[in-house]
Amino acid sequence: MESAIMEPEEIEPLIGEGDTDDIPGIGQYDDFHTIDWQRDIARDRMRHRYIVKKRQDSIWDLIKGAHDAWSGWVCVLLVGVCTGAVAGVIDIGASWMTDLKFGICPQAFWFNREQCCWSSDEMTFDQGNCSQWLTWPQVFGDSREGAGAYIIGYLFYIIWALVFAALSASLVRMFAPYACGSGIPEIKTILSGFIIRGYLGKWTLIIKVVGLILSVSSGLSLGKEGPMVHIASCLGNILSYLFPKYGRNEAKKREILSAAAAAGVSVAFGAPIGGVLFSLEEVSYYFPLKTLWRSFFCALIAAFVLRSINPFGNEHSVLFFVEYNKPWIFFELVPFVGLGIIGGCIATVFIKANIYWCRYRKHSKLGQYPVTEVLVVTLVTAVVAYPNPYTRMNTSQLIYLLFNQCGISNSDPLCDYDRNFTDVNSAIEKAAAGPGVYRAVWLLVLALVLKLVMTVFTFGIKVPCGLFIPSLALGAIAGRIVGIGVEQLAYNYPKIWPFSGECSTGDDCITPGLYAMVGAAAVLGGVTRMTVSLVVIMFELTGGVRYIVPLMAAAMASKWVGDALGRQGIYDAHIALNGYPFLDSKDEFQHTSLAADVMQPKRNETLAVITQDSMTVDDVESLLKETEHNGYPVVVSKESQYLVGFVLRRDLNLAIANARRTMEGITGQSVVMFAGGAGAGAAAAAALPAPPALPLNRILDMAPITVTDQTPMETVVDMFRKLGLRQTLVTHNGRLLGVITKKDVLRHVKQMDNEDPNSVLFN
Amino acid sequence: MESAIMEPEEIEPLIGEGDTDDIPGIGQYDDFHTIDWQRDIARDRMRHRYIVKKRQDSIWDLIKGAHDAWSGWVCVLLVGVCTGAVAGVIDIGASWMTDLKFGICPQAFWFNREQCCWSSDEMTFDQGNCSQWLTWPQVFGDSREGAGAYIIGYLFYIIWALVFAALSASLVRMFAPYACGSGIPEIKTILSGFIIRGYLGKWTLIIKVVGLILSVSSGLSLGKEGPMVHIASCLGNILSYLFPKYGRNEAKKREILSAAAAAGVSVAFGAPIGGVLFSLEEVSYYFPLKTLWRSFFCALIAAFVLRSINPFGNEHSVLFFVEYNKPWIFFELVPFVGLGIIGGCIATVFIKANIYWCRYRKHSKLGQYPVTEVLVVTLVTAVVAYPNPYTRMNTSQLIYLLFNQCGISNSDPLCDYDRNFTDVNSAIEKAAAGPGVYRAVWLLVLALVLKLVMTVFTFGIKVPCGLFIPSLALGAIAGRIVGIGVEQLAYNYPKIWPFSGECSTGDDCITPGLYAMVGAAAVLGGVTRMTVSLVVIMFELTGGVRYIVPLMAAAMASKWVGDALGRQGIYDAHIALNGYPFLDSKDEFQHTSLAADVMQPKRNETLAVITQDSMTVDDVESLLKETEHNGYPVVVSKESQYLVGFVLRRDLNLAIANARRTMEGITGQSVVMFAGGAGAGAAAAAALPAPPALPLNRILDMAPITVTDQTPMETVVDMFRKLGLRQTLVTHNGRLLGVITKKDVLRHVKQMDNEDPNSVLFN
Repeated sequence: MESAIMEPEEIEPLIGEGDTDDIPGIGQYDDFHTIDWQRDIARDRMRHRYIVKKRQDSIWDLIKGAHDAWSGWVCVLLVGVCTGAVAGVIDIGASWMTDLKFGICPQAFWFNREQCCWSSDEMTFDQGNCSQWLTWPQVFGDSREGAGAYIIGYLFYIIWALVFAALSASLVRMFAPYACGSGIPEIKTILSGFIIRGYLGKWTLIIKVVGLILSVSSGLSLGKEGPMVHIASCLGNILSYLFPKYGRNEAKKREILSAAAAAGVSVAFGAPIGGVLFSLEEVSYYFPLKTLWRSFFCALIAAFVLRSINPFGNEHSVLFFVEYNKPWIFFELVPFVGLGIIGGCIATVFIKANIYWCRYRKHSKLGQYPVTEVLVVTLVTAVVAYPNPYTRMNTSQLIYLLFNQCGISNSDPLCDYDRNFTDVNSAIEKAAAGPGVYRAVWLLVLALVLKLVMTVFTFGIKVPCGLFIPSLALGAIAGRIVGIGVEQLAYNYPKIWPFSGECSTGDDCITPGLYAMVGAAAVLGGVTRMTVSLVVIMFELTGGVRYIVPLMAAAMASKWVGDALGRQGIYDAHIALNGYPFLDSKDEFQHTSLAADVMQPKRNETLAVITQDSMTVDDVESLLKETEHNGYPVVVSKESQYLVGFVLRRDLNLAIANARRTMEGITGQSVVMFAGGAGAGAAAAAALPAPPALPLNRILDMAPITVTDQTPMETVVDMFRKLGLRQTLVTHNGRLLGVITKKDVLRHVKQMDNEDPNSVLFN
Repeated sequence: MESAIMEPEEIEPLIGEGDTDDIPGIGQYDDFHTIDWQRDIARDRMRHRYIVKKRQDSIWDLIKGAHDAWSGWVCVLLVGVCTGAVAGVIDIGASWMTDLKFGICPQAFWFNREQCCWSSDEMTFDQGNCSQWLTWPQVFGDSREGAGAYIIGYLFYIIWALVFAALSASLVRMFAPYACGSGIPEIKTILSGFIIRGYLGKWTLIIKVVGLILSVSSGLSLGKEGPMVHIASCLGNILSYLFPKYGRNEAKKREILSAAAAAGVSVAFGAPIGGVLFSLEEVSYYFPLKTLWRSFFCALIAAFVLRSINPFGNEHSVLFFVEYNKPWIFFELVPFVGLGIIGGCIATVFIKANIYWCRYRKHSKLGQYPVTEVLVVTLVTAVVAYPNPYTRMNTSQLIYLLFNQCGISNSDPLCDYDRNFTDVNSAIEKAAAGPGVYRAVWLLVLALVLKLVMTVFTFGIKVPCGLFIPSLALGAIAGRIVGIGVEQLAYNYPKIWPFSGECSTGDDCITPGLYAMVGAAAVLGGVTRMTVSLVVIMFELTGGVRYIVPLMAAAMASKWVGDALGRQGIYDAHIALNGYPFLDSKDEFQHTSLAADVMQPKRNETLAVITQDSMTVDDVESLLKETEHNGYPVVVSKESQYLVGFVLRRDLNLAIANARRTMEGITGQSVVMFAGGAGAGAAAAAALPAPPALPLNRILDMAPITVTDQTPMETVVDMFRKLGLRQTLVTHNGRLLGVITKKDVLRHVKQMDNEDPNSVLFN
């Protein structure tokens, strides 16, 4: 695992096209290995040139060429359509099963509460209840509003929650262990050029979809938005196999995955532009601009398909549409920044506690009982959540409630103000908060604490779970509380200077819903460290084009507080926890070390090299046995150590095995020839007595990337990031000194940041 | 000019901090040279480390450290505020002077027509005229609506236009020749790492602002949106000098310029998100993600300041706010894609004609009479434009008119339908077009041809001029005409299948304004080849969140048609015309050549190298005289050619001159020592007899980027793009073979694309 892999396709232009394909398996990667972007992209360009050249031969080749040129667009179109459709299925399924916890529609059990009540044509759709829809106490004949009914409702709620959670956890455990969690840390790692076989496979997809519906319905403190990105990426991966251009080239495949991730966010929030920016800012790594346009197309198609399905049956194209459009007061930036700071603190507490708990789970017996853990967490969540109306309701509904203004249609206790509405269009007047508001605030404080604690224990259990929605909910609760506080301050002291200008008239000058929105952005920003994409998502989510400045002020404050208190966002923290080889393109390397300090081997060790024309097959095979490197530099001779090229362990093994099988006269004494092209190898072979030499120049990469030993590590890190290297060779005055692999770089970065370098597990 | 520059700061960590600063001028660039990103960024990190280390020394250093950490944000804040303010000045000035062509407000001559009429408190603000505002015929006592008045108006229009244009052209010619044009091609080149001294200086800024107001007011077919990007970049450049971190480091300065470009688009269109995406997609080159958040902040501040100034005095926060929000019919995608194709064709015709004319201007006598050319173009434009009301009016007003729906408030002939409005809120019914509409269509066709021809001759004349607005206008005219056609088709044949579903009721199912919007996006997309940023700008420009899909369909069709007919967008074509060294990060290099094919020297030439310890000062100086390379590789010895490092011509000159001045005993016979650090150099010097050796290891870059001669050019191009190289050294088995500079790469790319390689002028 010390060294790494690079392959010969880069030199194929020299030796004819495609003729390394004659040995099967060459050019593939092993599981949990880093890919080589340069090589894959060079391979794709060669394939492209081959098709362009062949296009003139016949009509059929012309059609194949056109198909190849269009396949990227067709592929993202398919990904978009499928993502939209799957998102529709998830939305409909989750909404039906969430309502199933409370009751059933006897006429048509497959209707959720809203659809059931629509079909009844009743006008009194108060609090979402109607005579068609039967709550469980009503089903069992106990329609009194008493303790009995409450207990029956409570019990059914808990039982359904446990059933859903148990099903979800068992499915994940039995069929697709990769389907758990949000998947975003792994998607980030995969997009940065890492292979995790099966992570984006069809079983993961199916189980994630079913498990997500179940786990969302179970009332756990989790959201379906993060996993949607994983589901979309699975679709991207599966559909890319329809197009060999993408399916058989890991680097090209990541272009599709990048677009799919954008589509995932797009359908999760109904925010296509936000999705593209999320993909660009958070998950995409190597090719931000080239795929921008295609990602946008994919995200838009997905959103369009989902909107055509219209799973929620409402008019608004945005998830938490806010109706108000009132200007905010300049002074309000102070509480907004305050909310940002609160949000940053909540986010930091959450990240630290969650990582502590996940590390404990990883290293203790707890990790061996995932289903039990899920059941315990579900039981506790259900028992604690039901009594409080704000935790009992669907989290999305809670966020919608908190974002909105207290208008004529809002009868929640949160809107128990001393005001009378006479007309929908009348302005909302300033008013004192009634007792209902104060009671609601206390319940919200309880809900905040409860949700925070439960989310810490929930994110990381072995069911599909995202944390966008819980983060938004935490922030919305905190924001609404602050908002009500500021509102009442403005009501009671309208004469003090911040309010004296705008609040002197009778209209309400403070909108608590806006505070909820800002708070939600602050916590989500602190947790994920998103910046521009967060603001754009919030703005697409709510339609509140006026509120970009407040949202940005809070997001900025929250990010700064978060960065000051703990360097990493939740996804980066989980990547570090799992030891994935992820080289963050946003962190800067600030130290003064040189390539010579980082390279392998260290002093007193010797570097395993192969000479270009003086080692026998036996020598090479014993070297392969003695060392575990993934690749070996080829030098002119042991004495001079001038670098010729680089050869991969995997290719060496395959080529020798292949030669022994197919070439005559190859024995352990055959000299392995890398030098001077096939002609020179043959000439050298002819000059020698028997046995014949084994020419391996075809698997030799003659263009390895090299740096000198005096190169500052910041340049080396930059090259790894920007060129997508797996390793680089270190030379001094042309002589080979050593090798730096991606793992060496990551370990060095960790060491310099005073972290445990051994936490990097993969190469 | 054959070779290039790299500098020693990268190895400063070895030899102590900042001690190459002792020779003044080291580390600077010459005019029209490419910068070295790696070196500049390494220099900045070193400066940063120095400040971090010193921070513990005293409170003052702590404050300096904090100031340094914040300076990026403070700088973009200042850039945002200044950009917003300057944009406000330009908007107010241009609006006043545009109206001055038609008349004057006698009570307060500094009011434009709108403000003048506001102050009069008249209710009859019909067609923008009121009794307070006097047209020129009225001023001269001829208030009859006759031929005489018409001619007086005509004459005043032409005279004012000529005065404004002459002033603008003379100012540009006398004080700041760089202030002409849109500036976007040059900004793109500068951001890609090129030095054009004075292009972003204070004189350019002042003249561009004044000249832009004048040239916009002169009624030429140009817009102020493109130059706004140049103006914002000037502000970014000037303000960056307040912060040495940015002002004295070319690579870091480009971070500020990138944010400034975003702010420029943001104020031009009132589109902060679109501005950031424009900066990301079109102009930024090397650091897309790192500066995303700051660019967004800068763009938002600029938009916020401009909105606070409120130069247009209206409520809407968007430039061409559309009121309609009607769904479009799925079938309409066919005409939308058709509009995209038309837009792509118009754009291609425009680009080809404009480039042809600009090339003619460049190589003929015409280029010597810029002011005359401006006056002729202005005269022709004014004479031809006045009679047609659609070309006489301000182009922005025309676009606004075309984008909008025919409602109760719109009395233009374009809205001469056979319908009666009774209520503002009533739905717009289907109606047959009246004679006014047909007349308006003919006038619009004339306007389309006229604008197209005039814009071809206008873009490139020596006044500040952008082409966003003319492109939008061309597209809006074409789109509106198509829209009216489809509308009348739907009115006359409501039963045929595409319309049978939605158009059977009495309401109007086709919105011609939407077609204008789509057409505008198509032409602008074809001209600039923007993609995502275009759609986002259009969407922020009009507030039409529903119309992303039509806009995207048209933009996509237009881009594809444009790419098929002519590879380059207008900005890239102008970059190529001027021979700037711009390596497009979106083009892929598709050929099979190797580094060995591109490197200098070619066969039979020898490479100019310096040996590490065997050349005298005289040898080096004669080498400097004989060759013109910007830098020289340093090798172990002439015989072995093993690479040691790279040294710059400029630094060699400075260091030798400095040594002759300050060191004792340095003569032409002194051996120049690059080898083995200061210690080894001194030892070698001691071993020799007099004169003493000149140690130059401090200016030696010991970490030059190298590639092997077998490296495919696609990898080399990728390295140049992603690492921001000026040159790379080519080796074979550790021996130096040659050098590839950015100019070599660009020439090779041109050659492979069958273009003239000698059109690349700069290195």
